[in-house]
Amino acid sequence: MSDLEALRDRLREFSAERGWSGFHDPKSVLLALVGEVGELAELFQWLPASKAAELARSEPLRTRASEELSDVLLYLILLADVLGIDLPAAAHAKLTDSASRYPPGAAPS
Amino acid sequence: MSDLEALRDRLREFSAERGWSGFHDPKSVLLALVGEVGELAELFQWLPASKAAELARSEPLRTRASEELSDVLLYLILLADVLGIDLPAAAHAKLTDSASRYPPGAAPS
Amino acid sequence: MSDLEALRDRLREFSAERGWSGFHDPKSVLLALVGEVGELAELFQWLPASKAAELARSEPLRTRASEELSDVLLYLILLADVLGIDLPAAAHAKLTDSASRYPPGAAPS
Amino acid sequence: MSDLEALRDRLREFSAERGWSGFHDPKSVLLALVGEVGELAELFQWLPASKAAELARSEPLRTRASEELSDVLLYLILLADVLGIDLPAAAHAKLTDSASRYPPGAAPS
Repeated sequence: MSDLEALRDRLREFSAERGWSGFHDPKSVLLALVGEVGELAELFQWLPASKAAELARSEPLRTRASEELSDVLLYLILLADVLGIDLPAAAHAKLTDSASRYPPGAAPS
Repeated sequence: MSDLEALRDRLREFSAERGWSGFHDPKSVLLALVGEVGELAELFQWLPASKAAELARSEPLRTRASEELSDVLLYLILLADVLGIDLPAAAHAKLTDSASRYPPGAAPS
Repeated sequence: MSDLEALRDRLREFSAERGWSGFHDPKSVLLALVGEVGELAELFQWLPASKAAELARSEPLRTRASEELSDVLLYLILLADVLGIDLPAAAHAKLTDSASRYPPGAAPS
Repeated sequence: MSDLEALRDRLREFSAERGWSGFHDPKSVLLALVGEVGELAELFQWLPASKAAELARSEPLRTRASEELSDVLLYLILLADVLGIDLPAAAHAKLTDSASRYPPGAAPS
């Protein structure tokens, strides 16, 4: 089983055990995701851009970044599930589409 | 291979083919992720909360939401890779940790 | 009259003329604000950090940044109004509080 | 003097007293703004949409929302200043433009 599906299933169980599905309308889950993206941003905001990756390989930033990235991913998986979207399939399709729309040779946009 | 790892490898190839790694410092990738979260938010902002999930099962919202969720996921996978973080392992660990910190019985926070 | 209050009053008129208040619950306005922050992020994501301010003094970035900053401000003013919060007073109070909590001598956090 | 300009001037003084201008490149300030938007989102994410405004008129949410709205505003004013953009003028111009682009009669988009 794919890990995105394994995480999705663990989240369904987590939510069911606590009776939290009622809170999980798309707009609420989206705001929770925004909250976690904010926590991730706060870890990096004042770091020099050219040193940020290097600094994240040491503690305590490594663990904090790991936790916040996870939080963002978990809410994203939850949101896809609430919306009935197959996230792995969608992401692979998007990459394939991007590869043809952005042929090698230009800067990112 | 896990799909998070498969997507990570496809992104590495995508970036290498275009020589884009130089743009991929953590703060820049984080801003790109914020941009995509913004596009996702715009799809749902004026929808009634109680109808949003249902509306997302029809077109054109279904496809648009699918694309934007994918964009957020892809930048998240890229960011984890740039930071040298094992995203599937981190997410599973976070869920295990949350399960013990939030025992059944309380509302989400 | 303060410009934050003048803009707030113009927004009230704008919304009333169109019958849009029904859409303006805090969570919806917050998502709209997130959408605009995303558009702002997209303007800067791939620019080199050390050149970004300079690049923003020329067109077309100057006008685009101006528009997106405005959009973020307008939704922020709308949100404060929907919540019944006096935004200028709150901001001045926050600055005064920050000045005492962060005496000169340390890096930002 | 307008309150947006008064707050801008207080921020300039705050930053100069602490020698923080070196941290204030646009991308860093933008990430700080994202962090505060995240804190604002966290206050509202699980509240029922139809009750959120009412709940924000009581403590402790009233004070917390006030603080987070202020933080977002302050970073927005800082970002405009770093980019050399006249924020009040830009916001008024944007409203005027929106009033002509969205004549009364349609839902928001």
